[in-house]
Amino acid sequence: MALNKMVLGRSTEATAPDALRAVFAEFIATFLFVFIGVGSCIAHSKLSDGPLEAAGLVCIAIAHGLAIAVTVAATANISGGHVNPAVTFGLAVGGYITIVRAAFYWIAQLLGATLAAYLLKAIILTTGLSMPIHGLGAGVSITGGLILETVLTFALVFVIYATAVDGKRGQIGIIAPLAIGFTVLADHFIGVPFTGASMNPARSFGPAFAAMDFHNHWIYWVGPLLGGGIAGIIYDGVFMTAESDILPLPTDADV
Amino acid sequence: MALNKMVLGRSTEATAPDALRAVFAEFIATFLFVFIGVGSCIAHSKLSDGPLEAAGLVCIAIAHGLAIAVTVAATANISGGHVNPAVTFGLAVGGYITIVRAAFYWIAQLLGATLAAYLLKAIILTTGLSMPIHGLGAGVSITGGLILETVLTFALVFVIYATAVDGKRGQIGIIAPLAIGFTVLADHFIGVPFTGASMNPARSFGPAFAAMDFHNHWIYWVGPLLGGGIAGIIYDGVFMTAESDILPLPTDADV
Amino acid sequence: MALNKMVLGRSTEATAPDALRAVFAEFIATFLFVFIGVGSCIAHSKLSDGPLEAAGLVCIAIAHGLAIAVTVAATANISGGHVNPAVTFGLAVGGYITIVRAAFYWIAQLLGATLAAYLLKAIILTTGLSMPIHGLGAGVSITGGLILETVLTFALVFVIYATAVDGKRGQIGIIAPLAIGFTVLADHFIGVPFTGASMNPARSFGPAFAAMDFHNHWIYWVGPLLGGGIAGIIYDGVFMTAESDILPLPTDADV
Amino acid sequence: MALNKMVLGRSTEATAPDALRAVFAEFIATFLFVFIGVGSCIAHSKLSDGPLEAAGLVCIAIAHGLAIAVTVAATANISGGHVNPAVTFGLAVGGYITIVRAAFYWIAQLLGATLAAYLLKAIILTTGLSMPIHGLGAGVSITGGLILETVLTFALVFVIYATAVDGKRGQIGIIAPLAIGFTVLADHFIGVPFTGASMNPARSFGPAFAAMDFHNHWIYWVGPLLGGGIAGIIYDGVFMTAESDILPLPTDADV
Repeated sequence: MALNKMVLGRSTEATAPDALRAVFAEFIATFLFVFIGVGSCIAHSKLSDGPLEAAGLVCIAIAHGLAIAVTVAATANISGGHVNPAVTFGLAVGGYITIVRAAFYWIAQLLGATLAAYLLKAIILTTGLSMPIHGLGAGVSITGGLILETVLTFALVFVIYATAVDGKRGQIGIIAPLAIGFTVLADHFIGVPFTGASMNPARSFGPAFAAMDFHNHWIYWVGPLLGGGIAGIIYDGVFMTAESDILPLPTDADV
Repeated sequence: MALNKMVLGRSTEATAPDALRAVFAEFIATFLFVFIGVGSCIAHSKLSDGPLEAAGLVCIAIAHGLAIAVTVAATANISGGHVNPAVTFGLAVGGYITIVRAAFYWIAQLLGATLAAYLLKAIILTTGLSMPIHGLGAGVSITGGLILETVLTFALVFVIYATAVDGKRGQIGIIAPLAIGFTVLADHFIGVPFTGASMNPARSFGPAFAAMDFHNHWIYWVGPLLGGGIAGIIYDGVFMTAESDILPLPTDADV
Repeated sequence: MALNKMVLGRSTEATAPDALRAVFAEFIATFLFVFIGVGSCIAHSKLSDGPLEAAGLVCIAIAHGLAIAVTVAATANISGGHVNPAVTFGLAVGGYITIVRAAFYWIAQLLGATLAAYLLKAIILTTGLSMPIHGLGAGVSITGGLILETVLTFALVFVIYATAVDGKRGQIGIIAPLAIGFTVLADHFIGVPFTGASMNPARSFGPAFAAMDFHNHWIYWVGPLLGGGIAGIIYDGVFMTAESDILPLPTDADV
Repeated sequence: MALNKMVLGRSTEATAPDALRAVFAEFIATFLFVFIGVGSCIAHSKLSDGPLEAAGLVCIAIAHGLAIAVTVAATANISGGHVNPAVTFGLAVGGYITIVRAAFYWIAQLLGATLAAYLLKAIILTTGLSMPIHGLGAGVSITGGLILETVLTFALVFVIYATAVDGKRGQIGIIAPLAIGFTVLADHFIGVPFTGASMNPARSFGPAFAAMDFHNHWIYWVGPLLGGGIAGIIYDGVFMTAESDILPLPTDADV
């Protein structure tokens, strides 16, 4: 654990052009991810009236997984490509982003997700379709849902640390955006029927806000933040190599 | 915005071998993309009589997405791998291709798409199948369709700028063709039931011309060009690094 | 066109250890590809009695496409990773493999494909399943089938030249096995309902030999060889850079 | 074959921090793989009551394949990214891991798989779902099942040797985790209806132990170990380049 590496960024620097660009990139990336992800759920409901079947799960899983892969690839060198408050938290726990910058990232991610949900609302206005909200599957307990979101997000943030943050990763870093997106993709095949496979509070927040339906919404904050935080503590404490502490991420600069 | 970087290429150079090769490469790549993409829609209609279901959407999405990934990979070092008039326009807005060369690219892309549609017509002549045309889904408004095509193409051109044009992209450039194709792939899971998920005027034009059916065809020019243009303005104006202005793309040479 | 680059390898060198290893690698790679590809068709028929539907097409397309991607990745540095007589022919047309070595590759590829088909026959002996043979879909003309196999194989060999042979490909070469496999994958979504999407005479030959059913088998030689040959002539004649003539492939050494 | 390279690691070094980290990484990676893989089977049974259909096979194949790709990517530079006792055995046969370290890996892999199965049991406690166990499909003989598991694991370990161990692999190593995961993914499309496509004793052991059902369980040890061992013998004996003997893997150090 490297909590001592966490610093409060000096707020006077928060307006530096690079930091602003990074925050804006997180806004755009999370907007695009939530637009494509939630949009794929809406589009599936346009094709099929019944309950979700296996083919629909394939659509939703690929849409979310590849949308993460490409938004991470597009913003990795601008903002570090978090696109997810739980990822930002998991990196803050390891000391790889300042608390001030993390707060700005969170605001940008939530704003982007909300804009995406409202734009989707406008597009489906004339179609009779509704906004899909994350919730627990039939028979799934709150404890079961929490464990699942925690483990799935643990997997995501562990892979991010290992492929995109760790200094010894070497050439693996080239395919890091694919590894990160593929983790999200694979996680959907277990998570969707139980919790919706959020792993991302912003992904859950946007549609919940647009539909003003926050039933069980806290699960999608507690689970992902817990999983992301544990992954940060374990990877940084056990596996991280020394040189990674010096230049781990483009987002490592003080805000 | 960097419109001042846009120059009218000297027409005397338009016959230079490298420029001709680039234009020919765009012709071949767009031919192959439209052949595989439209062909996957026709092939699906051979397997299934009913309305599109989720499994069919998976077929069509993967076919289009991977066809873009591989044609971009094959022509990236020859023509820049546009394979799409909206991409060419988005790069022209940022000043990364001259207007003359862009015009030649558009002609090659539209010719390639048209040849693909006619060749498909010949193949399906004896099968009773028909040419699928882009159009709005039931209940989808023109405004909704336009917004959707705009946002989906914005995502595509934003990812292209970030992974294939920006000089600071570094190693991300290695997986750029995959990131670009995966954006198209993911976009299909939201776009197909609403607009067909064109993002590409040539993809829409070929089959429309072969079937002589241009109903609502303008949407597939205005939306993608708007989305590609906005992406070019935002990325080039906000995120582009200085050194990218010098040698952004193999297509940056005067035509 | 560079037919003058084609040389008859000196047969005394055909027993050199590296050449033997390359031939053996083609045998193993084609065995594995045909085992997985044909096996995926048999496995699908175990799950479903009816005609092929969209979800089954997804299974078969991904199995073939990724099997090519991984066998190419595994043998690229040993034999050049052809795994397909049409690819070997397309590279011979450009002069990137000697005729003698190409002949050995063909024999190894056909033997590997045949062994795979017989091993599958043994596995399904107790299950009542039968060996699937390539053939034309209902209503598909021989001309239509030939054109389709030609264009699909043209796409495959064009992508191979551009990403794995051309000396100017640079970093694109890193993802060449993925680009090649993804071409095969995407091609399946148009080809399967019409011709089975062979693009590979060895893939067609193995099951046809094991079932002793060669009806229309010639289509799967003429189409792929035509498409591969045209791709070789066009890419090598128009797009190839000079330095590629010197050291294009690990298979370029005399046999 | 290079059995003479196999050494009994000095047990006094088995507690070195790097070796412990490697063993812990195998525990986490196998836990995550089995959690996602088995979880995808359970999740599918929540969506669908009937027998497995093609769309469900797509879900299960992608979940397993990408889970391997990302856990290999995450642990390749820590433990070599085996995530599979048959892979560890296949590398031990070639002499690329000591027997002592291999034994620790096996224990970690089996413990991780068992923890994953028990955690899944807890999550599905309230849902009425049951733990899926590997077994032979209807009509499949034990011989047929053994051959299939042997060939599928041969493919997996052959690809690992060629892309991740062989010193001449060069740039192919960058996409090795993808090639390895895609092999597992493609293998599922042939194996699932016949044997469940295990290729991995730990993947079979975790659920079998949690359900205390070991019927035909031995097949999932004998087949994969045979296939992995043969791949190790052939690749190391025929294709391996000399320099690979010096520094083949991060796991090559004595334990």
